[in-house]
Amino acid sequence: MRFLNNKDFNYKDLQNILPEDLPELAGEVRQEIIKVVTQNGGHLGSSLGAVDLIIAMLKCFDPVQDRIIFDVGHQSYAYKILTDRFNRFESLRLKDGIAGFPRVNESPCDHFNTGHSSTSISAALGYAKARDLLGEKREVIAFIGDAALINGLALEALNYVRETKTKLIIVLNDNKHSISNRVGGFSTMLARLSANKNYNKLKAAIKEYTSEGVQKKLEAVRDQIKNLVKPENMFDDLDINYWGPFDGHDINSCETIFELAKNYDRPVLLHFMTQKGKGLKEAEQDPTKYHQVAPASSNKAATKSWSEAASSIVEDLAANNSKIVCFTAAMSTGVKLENFRKIFPERFFDVGIAESHMLTMAAGMAAGGLKPWVFIYSTFLQRAMDQLMHDIALQNLPVVLMIDRAGLVGSDGDTHQGLLDVSWGRAVPNLKIYSPCDYNSLNAVINHAAKCTSPIMIRYPRGNLPERAVYKDPDFNFNAVNNIAEGFEWALLGHGVTTHLLLEVRDEAAKLNLPVPAVYDLLRLKPLDDDALNNIFSKFKLVVTAEENYLSGGIGEAIAAKTAGLDVNFKLKLKSFGVPDVCVAHALPEEQRETFGLTVNNIINTCRKIL
Amino acid sequence: MRFLNNKDFNYKDLQNILPEDLPELAGEVRQEIIKVVTQNGGHLGSSLGAVDLIIAMLKCFDPVQDRIIFDVGHQSYAYKILTDRFNRFESLRLKDGIAGFPRVNESPCDHFNTGHSSTSISAALGYAKARDLLGEKREVIAFIGDAALINGLALEALNYVRETKTKLIIVLNDNKHSISNRVGGFSTMLARLSANKNYNKLKAAIKEYTSEGVQKKLEAVRDQIKNLVKPENMFDDLDINYWGPFDGHDINSCETIFELAKNYDRPVLLHFMTQKGKGLKEAEQDPTKYHQVAPASSNKAATKSWSEAASSIVEDLAANNSKIVCFTAAMSTGVKLENFRKIFPERFFDVGIAESHMLTMAAGMAAGGLKPWVFIYSTFLQRAMDQLMHDIALQNLPVVLMIDRAGLVGSDGDTHQGLLDVSWGRAVPNLKIYSPCDYNSLNAVINHAAKCTSPIMIRYPRGNLPERAVYKDPDFNFNAVNNIAEGFEWALLGHGVTTHLLLEVRDEAAKLNLPVPAVYDLLRLKPLDDDALNNIFSKFKLVVTAEENYLSGGIGEAIAAKTAGLDVNFKLKLKSFGVPDVCVAHALPEEQRETFGLTVNNIINTCRKIL
Repeated sequence: MRFLNNKDFNYKDLQNILPEDLPELAGEVRQEIIKVVTQNGGHLGSSLGAVDLIIAMLKCFDPVQDRIIFDVGHQSYAYKILTDRFNRFESLRLKDGIAGFPRVNESPCDHFNTGHSSTSISAALGYAKARDLLGEKREVIAFIGDAALINGLALEALNYVRETKTKLIIVLNDNKHSISNRVGGFSTMLARLSANKNYNKLKAAIKEYTSEGVQKKLEAVRDQIKNLVKPENMFDDLDINYWGPFDGHDINSCETIFELAKNYDRPVLLHFMTQKGKGLKEAEQDPTKYHQVAPASSNKAATKSWSEAASSIVEDLAANNSKIVCFTAAMSTGVKLENFRKIFPERFFDVGIAESHMLTMAAGMAAGGLKPWVFIYSTFLQRAMDQLMHDIALQNLPVVLMIDRAGLVGSDGDTHQGLLDVSWGRAVPNLKIYSPCDYNSLNAVINHAAKCTSPIMIRYPRGNLPERAVYKDPDFNFNAVNNIAEGFEWALLGHGVTTHLLLEVRDEAAKLNLPVPAVYDLLRLKPLDDDALNNIFSKFKLVVTAEENYLSGGIGEAIAAKTAGLDVNFKLKLKSFGVPDVCVAHALPEEQRETFGLTVNNIINTCRKIL
Repeated sequence: MRFLNNKDFNYKDLQNILPEDLPELAGEVRQEIIKVVTQNGGHLGSSLGAVDLIIAMLKCFDPVQDRIIFDVGHQSYAYKILTDRFNRFESLRLKDGIAGFPRVNESPCDHFNTGHSSTSISAALGYAKARDLLGEKREVIAFIGDAALINGLALEALNYVRETKTKLIIVLNDNKHSISNRVGGFSTMLARLSANKNYNKLKAAIKEYTSEGVQKKLEAVRDQIKNLVKPENMFDDLDINYWGPFDGHDINSCETIFELAKNYDRPVLLHFMTQKGKGLKEAEQDPTKYHQVAPASSNKAATKSWSEAASSIVEDLAANNSKIVCFTAAMSTGVKLENFRKIFPERFFDVGIAESHMLTMAAGMAAGGLKPWVFIYSTFLQRAMDQLMHDIALQNLPVVLMIDRAGLVGSDGDTHQGLLDVSWGRAVPNLKIYSPCDYNSLNAVINHAAKCTSPIMIRYPRGNLPERAVYKDPDFNFNAVNNIAEGFEWALLGHGVTTHLLLEVRDEAAKLNLPVPAVYDLLRLKPLDDDALNNIFSKFKLVVTAEENYLSGGIGEAIAAKTAGLDVNFKLKLKSFGVPDVCVAHALPEEQRETFGLTVNNIINTCRKIL
């Protein structure tokens, strides 16, 4: 590589590269991204698309002094490479390595952590007002994609820009894609704006100015530019100047536009058109597939993933029940609903990145007589908790929530863990919560959900179904705490993945000649099966719970509370394993389990001491 | 009253009233609303403003067969009076009486429960698609105010209308007010639209058509109308037909417009201008004050309210610390920030009904070096849980959350209870939670929060500060579990209002010659003070907790979990009082406490048996 030839290369070196050589540098950055992401896994499409814009921003803004805030943040890899993290970039998404999203603790160039979408404009407004009130001088830039712009949080922020009377630069990176295709009426507006031909006039103007040196002419054009490139649009009403659309791959023009915006004194939205996956042919052609890629080492086993199994069971049910409809918020690939979409296009709803709207619309559909199934990652359910409580639970509407990626999720890091759904869901009245541990229990619970007349949440983890079937006999009670392995002295209570962990603990105990513990699968987490639990409390000296959820508000606490004041067994001891009150950074799920003691060895060693 | 002369009057009788007599009927409905609301308390301003529109809707739509969904729902009193609830309207907001918001279990004319804002368009889209898929015939109408329209949930729904390819009528009731004044750029658009003069042309046209009978001419005009009244606006891009603005107090014109919309086959937004408080001079002149009025019997004691005390302490701090800024989401009156707004206009932010944006913007400000205080009702915090987790807690930013109306709130009913903040907040890493029980502890905790470098939540109830001071000595430890009354055999642990309840339990126990219990105030709920708790566990036979929060995930469970497996006291019994896993309907707070056994008598009787 001609430019990225030493690992200390950073944004200051950009000033020494001739304008005509910048595309070559961009190519080198893309090469590095492709190399590392295909090895470690990560977000490829949007990262590649944003390279040129990031180079232009880094030429024009000071990443330490100014505040560039990346929305979602999965498009920030080029920024990481060019701001002091090139030498560590190979550790992307690995334990103790570079995070897959901006992280303040990683570099003085990162100013706001992201991971979930649509936070950047609100955060930037906060930074901008802080600057004003503290009398500082710096630029504040929100870098946001077209799909993230239609989320309610971003729209609330756009609405509020006018009231703040502050300067703000919004960079709209429009690749015409959400994770899947973008959704909704606001995209019509973006499409209409992107067809605006004034852009060509501006391009000519920029060319001329650039040749004479940018700075000299900036003063002259900054008042003209807003009239030059401004079709009628919503941003007028919002008191945000709209400039665009521009080619987001023409680095030198982008730089000029950023200079103009920097010298302009009002809120401005810069609309850049980019191509998702730019520079990698496969990704350009199939941007949805290459949005996020799995690490080279990932499990390619023939086993079905939890997501595949769940959606295909629902598909089968839907074939015989025309009232079943499915929802996703821009995640049809992740939750494996593409097939459902194909078979039942009329009964499939991708609302875009709009989780709150999704749950309330599902509530309306249930009230209207349909049976809505909402597929959502545990971490994104956090964005719709009031809709779960206020619209679904209080009205006791039969919406099924399929909570994918529950538990430890690995390398997506702290913003993406699924550790709150049990704690938060347990406090919601009328809601039932299930946590199946194998295909048969998943199947039983989904079939039950189809008939259930109240709201129900089914949580399942990232990854593949376990090879070991826990429920072999089809006649088990999915509302009970089920004894799945006999034992004495101690009882191990798990749900979902931890049921398997506890079965391994039992195997290991047998090997070590410890008393062999009984193992129970909790399966229905809310309401808990009190009779079975009381029976367990009376039979064993030690009751152990293990869960991939925060301990606070988790099932361990719920069970401990049930033992309080019981007469049955004064000598009962309890021990809970789960995730303590900390943020869980990126690492492999196995590494995260190791950290929190959700391992056979730790459970054996801890319990041995208690026994 | 000429029309409302019998208690069985309902919407079917509207057909027998001459068009020119409808204003008189509207006057009678207003009289009834004013009479009951000034007695029982409730939402006055928006209820009065919506009377004429509701009469017109009820003439044009069938409230049983069609689906009229009121956003927030506090403007639906006229609808309740005219749809089979006139005879019970005097019980408005009383226990077992008519709810202050639409309730499906109350009448076949209510189709979706509301209370929080901005859910109506999503719910209506759900109903409309259900209708389409089930092959039914009915109109679906979302009735929404201008302030609710700028919330992210409503904007997400507007964005999604185009994708649904369904028919939907959105009635925009524009009274140019949020609870306080409306906020943000989208309101510019509404203002611009409401200045549109085409309305006059339409009015003339309507007059003509109406004189010849509406139905005959509807076919002729329905294709013309959209061109007649349509300035350029955002709704074009959203593929929603915009018609307006219209006078929302001209009942007969409104009816014609609804007829036109009914006969139109695409999504349409009808923009009506109304006056908040219409018909009551005081309310017309001061709409913010008359948005919600207290019941005639309410406590007018000289004691300060919790909200007043909290905001005035923060005001004092702000006078000496220019980094303190305050946020509210359209609730400056409720949380008592009007004074702060007056003294520090530059450091006051009312973001409108946009709770999610508020928390993320506060996070940005904290990252930018300021000290943001967010004042929010417990029930509305439910709308910003991901912003609390993802933007504030994971980044450990020093935002202070002042959680007003925590606990049982009384007559606002099930949508407004503050029963989840402890359960949900406990699972959030880096977050500290305090629950002061008197002025001195409130003051100490707020002063601590001003210096705290991590996120902090301070919860306090609706109503007035207690007369009994718990902390008299200024040198108490606000991070500890504090022993506030000596005793033996049993210990009572409370926080906030329940600390006072437990002090009364102690008084009563003394009277009854029971062992006198010790009373402890928990104060800091997260993290709990383990040493003090272990000490309590070792000293008493029975430990009792009481809290105004759901038991699931509450402090009772947290404390029970801490006793699990302790060696200190095998015979320790625990008993938790709190709110079980149910929805809490409207009633007086005292009545709600009675229902859930949060009373001196119930605690004494229950514990007596255990002792």
